[in-house]
Amino acid sequence: VASAPAPSSFGIEAMAVYIPVNRVAQPDLEKMHSCEGKYTRGLGQRAIAVPAANEDSVSMAFTALSRLMVAAGEPTDIGFLAVATESMVDRSKSIKSELVDRLGLTDTEGTDVYHACYGSTAAILWALDWLASGRGHGKRAIVVCTDIAEWGPEYCVLNGAASVALLLGPNPVVQLDASTSATISYNGHDFCKPLEQPYPVFDGPDSVESLTNVLRKCLARVPWGNSDFSYLVPHCTTAMMCRRASDTAADFFGVPAKDRASYFAAKVDPCTHWVRDIGSMFTAAMWVNLACLLSQGQAVNTNIALFSYGSGTMGTLWRARVVRALPAGSALIVAPEGVDTPSVSPSQCSALVRWQSAEEWLQLQRSTKMLAPSTAFALIGEEQVGRRKYALAEDADAGGGAA
Amino acid sequence: VASAPAPSSFGIEAMAVYIPVNRVAQPDLEKMHSCEGKYTRGLGQRAIAVPAANEDSVSMAFTALSRLMVAAGEPTDIGFLAVATESMVDRSKSIKSELVDRLGLTDTEGTDVYHACYGSTAAILWALDWLASGRGHGKRAIVVCTDIAEWGPEYCVLNGAASVALLLGPNPVVQLDASTSATISYNGHDFCKPLEQPYPVFDGPDSVESLTNVLRKCLARVPWGNSDFSYLVPHCTTAMMCRRASDTAADFFGVPAKDRASYFAAKVDPCTHWVRDIGSMFTAAMWVNLACLLSQGQAVNTNIALFSYGSGTMGTLWRARVVRALPAGSALIVAPEGVDTPSVSPSQCSALVRWQSAEEWLQLQRSTKMLAPSTAFALIGEEQVGRRKYALAEDADAGGGAA
Repeated sequence: VASAPAPSSFGIEAMAVYIPVNRVAQPDLEKMHSCEGKYTRGLGQRAIAVPAANEDSVSMAFTALSRLMVAAGEPTDIGFLAVATESMVDRSKSIKSELVDRLGLTDTEGTDVYHACYGSTAAILWALDWLASGRGHGKRAIVVCTDIAEWGPEYCVLNGAASVALLLGPNPVVQLDASTSATISYNGHDFCKPLEQPYPVFDGPDSVESLTNVLRKCLARVPWGNSDFSYLVPHCTTAMMCRRASDTAADFFGVPAKDRASYFAAKVDPCTHWVRDIGSMFTAAMWVNLACLLSQGQAVNTNIALFSYGSGTMGTLWRARVVRALPAGSALIVAPEGVDTPSVSPSQCSALVRWQSAEEWLQLQRSTKMLAPSTAFALIGEEQVGRRKYALAEDADAGGGAA
Repeated sequence: VASAPAPSSFGIEAMAVYIPVNRVAQPDLEKMHSCEGKYTRGLGQRAIAVPAANEDSVSMAFTALSRLMVAAGEPTDIGFLAVATESMVDRSKSIKSELVDRLGLTDTEGTDVYHACYGSTAAILWALDWLASGRGHGKRAIVVCTDIAEWGPEYCVLNGAASVALLLGPNPVVQLDASTSATISYNGHDFCKPLEQPYPVFDGPDSVESLTNVLRKCLARVPWGNSDFSYLVPHCTTAMMCRRASDTAADFFGVPAKDRASYFAAKVDPCTHWVRDIGSMFTAAMWVNLACLLSQGQAVNTNIALFSYGSGTMGTLWRARVVRALPAGSALIVAPEGVDTPSVSPSQCSALVRWQSAEEWLQLQRSTKMLAPSTAFALIGEEQVGRRKYALAEDADAGGGAA
């Protein structure tokens, strides 16, 4: 067994974010729902991302993973691949197994992890423990988080979509320190997706209260305080949730009410610039928020508090440290595309009911102009029931796709 | 960070197996299907286990976990709880979150893992890496594997059900050594459960061939050979699969064809005595087979080769060592109940379509005599959509259940 470095020496060497290009502007949706100000001023959203009709959670995972592999120079020393999602397309076959051919490797450990939005942090903690075990003999790990948030037509304001792939190893840009973390886990009921229901069953106020309660409990347990982190990067489903997390931390640390806005502006707001144009990202949320912060550069040589949360209920508060600057013109962080181009009619933001068969799903392509860009992977067909096929959208176009 | 012992010093301190008491005798099912000998001589099965109408994968996990907690003296030093299943009832809420109240703890790490039958080994490897990380400061880990195998009416011969809970820690009865393991992972298509399908989509011959191919590849990669293990405990869906695994290993090691039967009798048969009366156990299978071997006592001070497999496709070949005898009258291994009491009409072995709502499911109680025994947990109601309630069946009876 190779000697195991301290856990905090491992972390994020590279990451790639993928956000579908289609956007619904929230002022337009407010007009349609006759609730002006509710989604913009209330939830803090400018737009929400809508995946194309030929994308699913697996194709989005492919896109993020492929971009990461290109950005990282097609590494061959990957010993572990795990996937986090709550948008699964199969109750048995893992998304990891769909992705693994992209690595060109047949001996990776790791598989899919799920617990609502918390699955991503569970998978990354697992990857860090695997790295520290030395069983990979110096190989590195990849975790892919992918989700399409679909709350049903009535609540489509809470939709969104994102995937993010993280390369984890011993030479990190961002060290992840789980040695001084706090985790809360109990049987909560704020959000679930029973198999027989197409859309989530949820209690929004309970979710907000659960998230802030778990954060408060974690803050009370970690052996570090307000002065030990420059930024707080929370999980969220809307930008408003980031503000709630900020207020909870400010309150816990005794920050006067009048200084809460400046606390938010200094410690939390920098990580919220992307979510405002994306909406719910489920497992990808906190990691996309982190990428957003890193993309701005000011976090170099600072500590970051990471707060992961998943309904049902789990949360972890831990710390990261940005140990070096990203190279100029860095490919390490691939920014989301099209965040300033809300482009889709609000009537198109309703969910496509993602648990239909691939064949039914592809039929939607004929009735929509929302297709994945040529640089993204797409669902191109179903060879037989349960056997979905994916390829770069440009290849699909060239070959006639599955039409 | 606590200094990390070598991985092989961790392992199974206790385990508890739960098998539903109802059995369908395979000779009876052969008569109904007009295929005498196919299920008994062909698949090696004497019976298959059928869960009660008021059991689901979560109640079965409760039963195994609760029995483990009782057998282990209600330990309070648990820092990690993970669950493996391919019989989920929710696409977001983890089964771990349903179980965690039974521990009386609110700070456990770990959550649900899935990749067909391989999820259990993935979860246990994760738990071992978590133990070795020292982040739990000496706390121990529990992994629960729970599955109801339902192949649809036509293939109900392949049904079965089992749950097993394992207490993992530094003072094991069975050391688990992943440091000399081999793992194979690729995009296979022998078995899946697309969300829109009630039953698995599968190719039986492909599964058998995939399992034996993965075993062969793993045997070629591990740095140990035939003389380094006394027993081979394979994953299986029927007893026949254990024989196929045995023949594959014998062939790989150059055992003459005439000696294959004695190779099986010596190295593999002892772990197959329970599966013959249970049938498919999915994630629980290899671990129940291991418990079956341990229950007989002869494996003390021997090495065991463990072969985990999951369709879709992943497999790991690793080693265990039984380092001490189980105490006389040991509670460490709680044998399955009723393995000699096939008791149910073959017409009742068809699946109940487990992904219906809890309410519909409970209605089945009124039309069946198959209820969970008073010592098992049962589904007793659904407070609201997606919020299933569980209790010991005897409590449910006392309180009138959910009727």
